[in-house]
Amino acid sequence: MKLQTAKGIQDIIPEEKIIQNKIVQDLKETFEQYGFSPLETPIIERLETLSAKFTAGEASDALKETFKLKDQGKRNLGLRFDLTVPLARFVGMNPQLPMPFKRYEMGSVFRDGPIRTGRVRQFLQCDIDTIGTSSMLAEAEILSAADSAFKKIGLDVKIKLNNRRILNGILDECGIKKKEEAIIAIDKLDKIGQEGVIAEFKERKIKSSEKLFKLVKPGISLSELKKKVTSEETLKGISELEEVFGYLDKMNVYSIVFDVSLARGLAYYTGPVYEVFVKDGSLKSSLAAGGRWDNMIGSFLGKNSIVPAVGVSFGIVPIIECLKKKEEFSQKSLTKVYVIPIKTLDESLGIVQELRSQNINAAVDLLDRNISKNLKYANSLGIPYVIIVGKRELDEEKVLLRDMKSGDQFEISVKEVVKKIK
Amino acid sequence: MKLQTAKGIQDIIPEEKIIQNKIVQDLKETFEQYGFSPLETPIIERLETLSAKFTAGEASDALKETFKLKDQGKRNLGLRFDLTVPLARFVGMNPQLPMPFKRYEMGSVFRDGPIRTGRVRQFLQCDIDTIGTSSMLAEAEILSAADSAFKKIGLDVKIKLNNRRILNGILDECGIKKKEEAIIAIDKLDKIGQEGVIAEFKERKIKSSEKLFKLVKPGISLSELKKKVTSEETLKGISELEEVFGYLDKMNVYSIVFDVSLARGLAYYTGPVYEVFVKDGSLKSSLAAGGRWDNMIGSFLGKNSIVPAVGVSFGIVPIIECLKKKEEFSQKSLTKVYVIPIKTLDESLGIVQELRSQNINAAVDLLDRNISKNLKYANSLGIPYVIIVGKRELDEEKVLLRDMKSGDQFEISVKEVVKKIK
Repeated sequence: MKLQTAKGIQDIIPEEKIIQNKIVQDLKETFEQYGFSPLETPIIERLETLSAKFTAGEASDALKETFKLKDQGKRNLGLRFDLTVPLARFVGMNPQLPMPFKRYEMGSVFRDGPIRTGRVRQFLQCDIDTIGTSSMLAEAEILSAADSAFKKIGLDVKIKLNNRRILNGILDECGIKKKEEAIIAIDKLDKIGQEGVIAEFKERKIKSSEKLFKLVKPGISLSELKKKVTSEETLKGISELEEVFGYLDKMNVYSIVFDVSLARGLAYYTGPVYEVFVKDGSLKSSLAAGGRWDNMIGSFLGKNSIVPAVGVSFGIVPIIECLKKKEEFSQKSLTKVYVIPIKTLDESLGIVQELRSQNINAAVDLLDRNISKNLKYANSLGIPYVIIVGKRELDEEKVLLRDMKSGDQFEISVKEVVKKIK
Repeated sequence: MKLQTAKGIQDIIPEEKIIQNKIVQDLKETFEQYGFSPLETPIIERLETLSAKFTAGEASDALKETFKLKDQGKRNLGLRFDLTVPLARFVGMNPQLPMPFKRYEMGSVFRDGPIRTGRVRQFLQCDIDTIGTSSMLAEAEILSAADSAFKKIGLDVKIKLNNRRILNGILDECGIKKKEEAIIAIDKLDKIGQEGVIAEFKERKIKSSEKLFKLVKPGISLSELKKKVTSEETLKGISELEEVFGYLDKMNVYSIVFDVSLARGLAYYTGPVYEVFVKDGSLKSSLAAGGRWDNMIGSFLGKNSIVPAVGVSFGIVPIIECLKKKEEFSQKSLTKVYVIPIKTLDESLGIVQELRSQNINAAVDLLDRNISKNLKYANSLGIPYVIIVGKRELDEEKVLLRDMKSGDQFEISVKEVVKKIK
């Protein structure tokens, strides 16, 4: 038998999982600080639910990347590819939910797509969404939560903000019809420049416009844009963002900047959209992204009603990649102290239990090895302290504490060990 | 479209997820205290890996309950049904791991089985395992970790301990051949009594034995049993357990009791086995269970080598069920304070941010509703405090704090609110 993981799917080894757990904990605490409640939707959904997101045109392509399966009753099922569709299904199924419903969810999502660098078929997604309010306060709160989360994680970020209404209005003003396709091309302005976007317009048979690039111009400010446009929709979009910036100011959040070229690929956004980047530019991909999606839940319910929704999704993989560029991570274990008994197993077991009861993560030799093998083991796991428990030291109610980094050794009591390490 | 989850698969709503998160956090902290490192193996595995666990006889039945799927490359895949097989695969793939390898994993597992009360097709499993040591110290450590975990969770438990060697030796002594089948029947002695076991023996065409029930007798002590048996294997099993109890004594763990009838259904156990029950008997099902499984990893590697392993698996569903019998859980939100602005939105945003910066989970009205609707909303989520921010109070640098349980109201400064709530 070949011992391997499924194609495109990886184990998360302890040194990686320790970093991931830290980020997840930071996010969780931030989300709860902002009043979001935890929800867990299942990994397996009915295939019909997963397909409902897509309009006729998109369906075939996106569903190709959905893992499909059947249960023993031959029901058609699939693995979720995001946390948004299950949320829409959940809200639709639970009309009694007090509104606004603010939830966070962290869970694995699956895409049966081609494997390129950094793309995997199973990955962790962490989302917050506020359902049931059209107020721009919801956007401000979500942006502030993202700002707080990255502060907690320890990354200096810039959050780009735009509004689909602004782009839609501008495209109308410029007489461009295939708006969704045009938006996908404009989203790349940052990367491929004006020339690149024009080339992509040609490919997609979209008529370009001089006016477009006078308005969709890198660095243009909200107030400058306001003077240059006439479209009602664009002006409405601008005034929404002014409202968001006003709230953010009162909330002391200053990491958000307007960027008219930010479009976000997904068709389901209906209002403000945003994307988070690391400030020093050390990573090009975004660390988090989101926007307002007022139509999906309503369309799930099959009514004409609108259930407003706004959210943001955090990408754990790029966040870890970013942190790794800043710091070195070598912890393979969270153990603080490793205890080596020298013919003192009984007493050593008491000591290791004492450390644990003091909330110090501790382990003890389980293989009856000699000191040098034990030190090598502790070292290979990056455990910072070792206690060697000898009979002579015990007689004086002491143990030998070794700092594995400096090599310094101290003959001290267990109480003093606790004080030193805590 | 029908809005529903897949058959046998449920959403975990906020009030449930809040309890689950608390238990998971308690377990995680305990596991780390005992020196276990986090690992995450994938939810999708190669079907060949998942099948490798079963011997020819078992394969068809158990694999029937495995969710199967294919990727676009037509590879045969499946969803994991436990965390043990992926661990065996991981250890097999990583021969460089420093031994002993102590890991914990928490993740969803899947079984496409019949839906009975309380049985679901996706559920959370939480395991710790120590790989690479035959020492009974590993058993003692895992039992002590389980003991600590339940103390932290707040459940008074009794842990039953037995040894497969003891049962195997006794069955030999009694001339019973179909040992695996006999063990499955004996495991039910507690529930169905001696008569029941004899009946099941008949069904399975196993010759019963008077001697068997003199040895496998509820309440028999380890020392009593030791006097009555002759089998080398049984005596070896008894001496292993004596060793475990000796270590547990030094570790101040006293919740473990010997139970000769405890067998555990799974065929892959090779030594000590254990099962955790709530002491007051309010729930019959076990809360956690495990044992030594020295053969699986070796058989995965296709060599004759033995890679010793010992672990325990925690059942989150029965643990939650047990806690619910003791306490009432009604929190739908972790929010501590809900802020209601009365034409003071700007100042209220500053206040809610101040609370968050003090690590107080806070939310603010996002729908511009009146006081009574806002109070109703806060109440429906079980939020304990509300702050009403009026202009008059603000002029005196105060706000109105309302205790939602008692109805008491206080006109105090935000600083005093923080002190009061923290």
